[in-house]
Formats: sequence, structure tokens, C-alpha cells
Amino acid sequence: MLEFSDIQTAAARINGVAHRTPILTSRTLDALLGCEVFLKAENFQRMGAFKFRGGYNAINALTDAERARGVLAFSSGNHAQAVALAAQLHGCKAAILMPSDAPQMKLDATRGYGAEVITYDRYREDRSALAKRYADERGAVLIPPYDYLPVMAGQGTCALEICEDVPDLDALIVCTGGGGFLSGCTVAAKTRQPGIKVYGAEPEAGNDVQQSLRSGHIVSIDVPKTICDGQQTQAVGIHPWEVIRTQVTDILTTSDATVIDAMRFAFERMKIVLEPSGACALAALMTAREQFAGRRVAVTLSGGNIDFARFAKLLQT
Amino acid sequence: MLEFSDIQTAAARINGVAHRTPILTSRTLDALLGCEVFLKAENFQRMGAFKFRGGYNAINALTDAERARGVLAFSSGNHAQAVALAAQLHGCKAAILMPSDAPQMKLDATRGYGAEVITYDRYREDRSALAKRYADERGAVLIPPYDYLPVMAGQGTCALEICEDVPDLDALIVCTGGGGFLSGCTVAAKTRQPGIKVYGAEPEAGNDVQQSLRSGHIVSIDVPKTICDGQQTQAVGIHPWEVIRTQVTDILTTSDATVIDAMRFAFERMKIVLEPSGACALAALMTAREQFAGRRVAVTLSGGNIDFARFAKLLQT
Repeated sequence: MLEFSDIQTAAARINGVAHRTPILTSRTLDALLGCEVFLKAENFQRMGAFKFRGGYNAINALTDAERARGVLAFSSGNHAQAVALAAQLHGCKAAILMPSDAPQMKLDATRGYGAEVITYDRYREDRSALAKRYADERGAVLIPPYDYLPVMAGQGTCALEICEDVPDLDALIVCTGGGGFLSGCTVAAKTRQPGIKVYGAEPEAGNDVQQSLRSGHIVSIDVPKTICDGQQTQAVGIHPWEVIRTQVTDILTTSDATVIDAMRFAFERMKIVLEPSGACALAALMTAREQFAGRRVAVTLSGGNIDFARFAKLLQT
Repeated sequence: MLEFSDIQTAAARINGVAHRTPILTSRTLDALLGCEVFLKAENFQRMGAFKFRGGYNAINALTDAERARGVLAFSSGNHAQAVALAAQLHGCKAAILMPSDAPQMKLDATRGYGAEVITYDRYREDRSALAKRYADERGAVLIPPYDYLPVMAGQGTCALEICEDVPDLDALIVCTGGGGFLSGCTVAAKTRQPGIKVYGAEPEAGNDVQQSLRSGHIVSIDVPKTICDGQQTQAVGIHPWEVIRTQVTDILTTSDATVIDAMRFAFERMKIVLEPSGACALAALMTAREQFAGRRVAVTLSGGNIDFARFAKLLQT
């Protein structure tokens, strides 16, 4: 089970390496949604997403002997870049298993951080099994993207910062795929501000965590077809689930169209760039605004890794 | 002549009203340009550009009796929004003379802040004369966009913040149209860090300030055709010129194509949105990078007011 002390340890490890990202506010947004919104801009994190926190913490937590063997990760994108960059910063080798249809910018960036990229078909191959086989063949240490305590602890540092910067929050909305970010943030937020309610945010086409929380057991779905490429997971991880099951108030969902609206609002009114999954929690708040009327709500903007061509295609359709 | 104490007074007036915008850095940018770059993100300023500083200071400096008469401004865009918002915050009426081909977003935003918008043809009508006539007819106080000490002093607060946040700068690059921003920033920077060299940045199609500085007298040009709509001035203002003439090291120019490159870099690597004039100083540094090798260079990102449709059109051509 993830402990708060794990998150504190992670915070000490990433201190001075990860960016302490700003909390953004917008009078226009507050007026539009009828609540006080505090946006945690992880799109400004190193490599462009919160994933750096977990990737760095996980590699930093290894022994020298483990790091000497090199690391291996599987990821739809941002965890790949996170492990690649964190490995580079630790002077250790990284190999990354990425879906062949991952955004080109994410494939290029991962290679740009010096990692070896191995592609696979996300609709036909089981990435966990593939990753395990590669790790065994090479003797490399596998760094899973979410179902792994050091990664969850690293992601939780994001909510630690939110709670330090914004007192007296009523709610925190965190986007979720495999649950690493949501579970880490939940433990941090519930410890720092016990009265806070924590919500997950998913694309409605991939609402497995919502189904899981409402049914009381982990529900697995087909790979969801959504523009939110960071959230195309089929089921929440077992370790994150232990936290989510007991401490998360609810999972909100939102349509791809509302995600695009949120991306457009962020662009035109806030002058920032969000990738679809990075806008999912904001879109979920837009969808559920009545439920949060008058409240103080923190929202994670989890990443901004999208090339202009894809951004334009999404906003122009 | 603009005095440093005017800028200090302006800083006290805007304190708690204007945003203290962040300094952004990018390891990728530093590696690309071979210098240490500190980007002052005025695209995050209220109403989306540095102009709020000058507009607010100018209206705050009026007497109650003057404010009761209402204010009037002429502007290609951001000064319009600045005066409109600053007037709204002071509870005074504003009328704004804007070119009929100003970006729709800027026209809408100005009206959104409660100002009356009067449009004119920027290629055929003399806006100064028009503005004076309207001001006389209505008894309103004219707030000029740059050739006006309270506006210049307000804009200078931007460099005051830069110099507080980044010690030991070698150079500061400030975009310039009429010279209000450049002159204010020059006085602030040269006072706070006397060893600093200050450079202006202009689109090469509208290099009137460069021509002026190199010839030693104010050169006036036809309305320049450039994507940098915030810099389509024909000549530098007389008050700014007094500062620029004696204290600015040089004026750099850059092509519209490089401005687009800078906008794309800001979008994809820094996750921020810049309007063309907002990217002009960064583009000028990209163009003149060899000159700044190994130096510590601050660059103003002056604004981010651009709707997605125009942004997409620029980056896709």
C-alpha cells in the first residue's frame, strides 16, 4: 500500500531536478464555471508531463547495481519520455516499448533523450508480456508506468505541491488512466488536507475506473478509442486500485468534444498548450460544473506533449 | 524624459493588480541558441499582453475628475484591451479606436471589457488625428499607446521584474513598435543593471526604429505589411525616441518566417501560445544568435492574444 512517507521521500529525491510547476488561475474560467479553479500546470514539467516525477523517483530509488543493468519501460508516450530522460540524468541505459501509433513527437522525443525505442501494435499485442520478455532477455529493470509504488509515490508529489500552494481546497480532480497519478495524488492530498474530496477524470469511451469504483471491483475494457492517448489503458493497476477503491470520491467522465473545448479554452484564454489527456480533468470539471458550484477546486493539467499538426487537426474538426 | 522614479511609482500602482509574470527557461532553447535565455512571459499578463501595465498606470495616474470624463485610446489591439480593462477596473468609461482589420479576437475582447469600439481603416485614415477629434468631441482623456510618459513608465515595470528575478544579465531584447515598451524597459534595466545592453526587435518589413537609430533621427515608413500586427507603427514616438536614441545598443530585425518558427518552438517545446509580435524578440535572438553566444540574455514574450484559427493559418503556410 502506498504510504504518505513514500511521497515525502519522492519529493526529496526530485527536489531541484523536477520543476515545481505553477498554479494557474483565470478569472474568466472561474466566471464560466462558477467555482474557484486552481490549475496545476504539469504541461510545464520537464519533458512536458507529470510523468517525469514518477520516472525519476523510480530510477533514483534503484541500487547502483540495478541501474547498471539498464531500465526498460512500456508506455503510450509520456512515461516513455519520463523514463528516457530520468535514465539519461542518472547515466543509465533505457529501452522503451511504445505503441507503433504513438504520436510521432513522443516517439522522437523518447529517442531524443537517448533511449532505444521498440514499437508494438497496441491493438494486438500484450505490452506487459512483451515488456517482461524483453526485460528478461536483457536483464534490464522494468519500470512499470503506474502499477508500481515508486512511480505512484513520484506522481503524488504533484498533489503535495498543490496542497502547499492552495489552502482549503474542497476538491481535487486528477486525470486517470492506469491510476498511478490518481492514487499518488489521493494519498498526498488526503494527508495534507483531510477534508478534500478527490475525483478521477476519464474519457467517457474509456470509463473503466468509473465502472470499477461503482462496482467495487476492477473492470477491464477493450482498448478505448479516444483522442486522450494517455488514457487508453484497459484496467486500473492493482496497487493504485487499493487507494482509489477506498479514498477516491468518484470518477468523472467527459467526451472527446469537451476535451477539445478545454484545449481551445487553454489555448485562447490561458495561452497554454495541453495534449488531450492533459485537458481531460479540466474538461471533466466543465462537464460536471454544477456539482462544484462555489467550491475551491484544484485540477491537474497533466501534460502538453502534442505536435502542432495533431493539435490543429483536433481543433479544426 | 522618462525617469526611473516614474517606473517605481508605476510598479507600486500595478502591484497586486497586474500579474507578476514568470521567467521561463528551456534547456532545449539554451542548447539551440548557445546562450542562456530568460523569457519573460507577458503572454500570461492580464488581458494577455504587457500593455496592461501601461494602460493601468496611465488611468490610475489620472485625477478623479479626469476619470469621470472617460478615456479614449487608439490601438492595433492590445493597448485597446489594456485601456478597456484598466478603465473597467477603475469604474470609468472607455472608447477605443481600432483598425477595422484588427484580429477579431482583439475586437471582441475589447468589447468584452465593456469598452465602446470605433473602427477605422488603418491604411487610409490617420488614427492620431481621428482619436484627437473624438476625444475633443466627447471631452474624454486620450491615453496614447506609446508616446506618453505614464504608459512608458508602466511598460518599464516589466524590465524591473526581469532585473529582480535574473541577476547579471548581459543583454535584454525587447520587441518594439512605437517604442513605449522598449524605452520603459531600457530605463528600468539600465538603472538596475547598468552593465546590460538593451536591444529592440522589429519585423524586418517594419524596421523604422532600426533606421532611426542608425541614422540618428526618427525615420517614418509606410504602414509595414507583416504578420506582427502589434508592430505596424510607422515611426517611433518622440518621448520613447529620447531614451532609445541614447541608451539602446541596437535594433535587431527578423523575418515573418522566423517569427513563425519561434511561435512553433514556443508551442511545441514550451507549451505556450505567442502572438506574432509576442514572438518577435525571440525570433530576433534566433536570427542574431551568434552575436549572443555564451551570454545571459533576457527576452520579452510580449503577448499571446491570437485566436486558434489565425494561429493555425500562420503555422500551416
